[in-house]
Amino acid sequence: MSEIHGWAAHGAKQKLEPFTFDAGPLAPEEVEMAVEYCGLCHSDLSILNNDWGLSRYPVILGHEAVGRIVATGDYVKGLHIGQRVGIGWSAGSCMHCHECMTGNHNLCPEVAATIIGHHGGFADRLRAHWAWTIPLPDALDISSAGPLLCGGITVFAPLLRHGVKPTDRVGVVGIGGLGHLALKFANAWGCEVTAFTSNVSKIEELRALGAHRVVSSRNSTEILAAANSLDFLLITVNTPLDWTALLKTLKPNGRMHVVGAVLEPMPISAFDLIMSQKSISGSPTGDPSAISAMLDFAARHGIAPQVEHFPLSRVNEAIEHLAAGKARYRVVLDVA
Amino acid sequence: MSEIHGWAAHGAKQKLEPFTFDAGPLAPEEVEMAVEYCGLCHSDLSILNNDWGLSRYPVILGHEAVGRIVATGDYVKGLHIGQRVGIGWSAGSCMHCHECMTGNHNLCPEVAATIIGHHGGFADRLRAHWAWTIPLPDALDISSAGPLLCGGITVFAPLLRHGVKPTDRVGVVGIGGLGHLALKFANAWGCEVTAFTSNVSKIEELRALGAHRVVSSRNSTEILAAANSLDFLLITVNTPLDWTALLKTLKPNGRMHVVGAVLEPMPISAFDLIMSQKSISGSPTGDPSAISAMLDFAARHGIAPQVEHFPLSRVNEAIEHLAAGKARYRVVLDVA
Repeated sequence: MSEIHGWAAHGAKQKLEPFTFDAGPLAPEEVEMAVEYCGLCHSDLSILNNDWGLSRYPVILGHEAVGRIVATGDYVKGLHIGQRVGIGWSAGSCMHCHECMTGNHNLCPEVAATIIGHHGGFADRLRAHWAWTIPLPDALDISSAGPLLCGGITVFAPLLRHGVKPTDRVGVVGIGGLGHLALKFANAWGCEVTAFTSNVSKIEELRALGAHRVVSSRNSTEILAAANSLDFLLITVNTPLDWTALLKTLKPNGRMHVVGAVLEPMPISAFDLIMSQKSISGSPTGDPSAISAMLDFAARHGIAPQVEHFPLSRVNEAIEHLAAGKARYRVVLDVA
Repeated sequence: MSEIHGWAAHGAKQKLEPFTFDAGPLAPEEVEMAVEYCGLCHSDLSILNNDWGLSRYPVILGHEAVGRIVATGDYVKGLHIGQRVGIGWSAGSCMHCHECMTGNHNLCPEVAATIIGHHGGFADRLRAHWAWTIPLPDALDISSAGPLLCGGITVFAPLLRHGVKPTDRVGVVGIGGLGHLALKFANAWGCEVTAFTSNVSKIEELRALGAHRVVSSRNSTEILAAANSLDFLLITVNTPLDWTALLKTLKPNGRMHVVGAVLEPMPISAFDLIMSQKSISGSPTGDPSAISAMLDFAARHGIAPQVEHFPLSRVNEAIEHLAAGKARYRVVLDVA
């Protein structure tokens, strides 16, 4: 039985419709998961709307899927039927290039996105390479875990990779689906946390999420009042900001790290980097070992995305809700 | 006897003239050096011309000075009269801030530049704080060592700080006073070295300096042919380049590091940083322990700046030579 039933878009910006396809025999290194919940991420909208020119249709969206393994290919390693797992932005990588062989699978030139040329998790079943099928800790609440698989790892991986220390002061710019998780992670990491937001009226809410300080991201004077105070500044928004002022919030040797896909070029002054030895960097999601480390950390610290649930049958309504900027803070579709 | 005799500028863009000043009593933490040689650096021109709006006049220029200690204040540590030492861009720092206490003295908010509000090394004697007076290894040729103290450390410190490995592939953009030293250091570091130059006719000269490959820095097609080949790219120029193409020469996780004070903002695409997890960073000179490590490395590997000598009495001629872009590759003034 290789028929998979899901909800697919048949072209850019179209409504999703029920869709069935024949997935064929399971490949030797593939795992098949029965999907229980699947997060709805901004990247699903970008693929739906073909914002990046990479979309192929028809496509079943959804790349923050959690559920149980129902089948394993002959060469699958370390997983077994019935196991609770998650699958995120990537569904496979070549496993033998320099990046895969050094634990940077997410940078593999052949990394396969779950929803580009492959059908995603708004479906009863989802397939992925075993390396990208990540076991979930028992302590994790499965009904809200989905958004950790893409949104969560995107903001967690930079803390891990760039050696952020519990003694550091961390800023998070943009408190939405990604940013609210970044506040929780940075707070549990032991850091002093500053939230930069366009909506300073929600200050109590941001404190509850883990922020020790709240600064307007749209007010350069307020940003500059925070000058020389941060070791690490995470940018989760995709709209242009006052980059010069934001760079000034960093202490010497500080780093501004971008995970929001800002489309307009950022005009960066070399002097601003040189004088206080600052860095700017970026990253896409994370590798499988970082995803495992994040899930373990989230389970130990009781960190869960704040989510709103929609049944899969109301996926189009959920998409409108997210596109309108109304999600608080992440949408999860109940699939099973 | 506290009179010091040197050559000073009395205003922006003026000729240097013989100048004598009374340095007063030596401070307890200060060292006085009898200058033997002093390099002429592009930053001397920037201060002479007040390019950065920081200059104070009259000013004796020169911040790549080598010579012997002739006097030490009462609280000077680890140095003695007669010792051969060098003094570079910085002549002092507060010694007690977080940066000084963590070995990042060059980032001290009160770091004192040798030629800003302080008289430099185009003089018979030069004073600096003991921490910034760096002993020279015996094996180092003193007549060419001066440019290591500013130009050398500026390109060496990033290799050290950012953990460049001998297995890495390193690019150097701009082969002048800084770049020719970067080629030598990166080659001795064990790396494969690519020179990006506006003058590809000097290919044999660049190979002799340590380059394994030469690419035109003005030809985007040629730059793009080197895509995905470098781990570390050092920018030593101060003119705008095709930053997008240069970023593409980096492999995943690669870093572009800027030490040239490019005045125009660099338009950086967030996507270019995100997709392959790249970084951009900058730095100013280096801290005292990095300068010592560099001098030791240079002495062990026989690395010396390629210099042209002028007597101090012809300093104005030397300045014209450098300003005209004719220096191959660094100018040293014979002071004593």
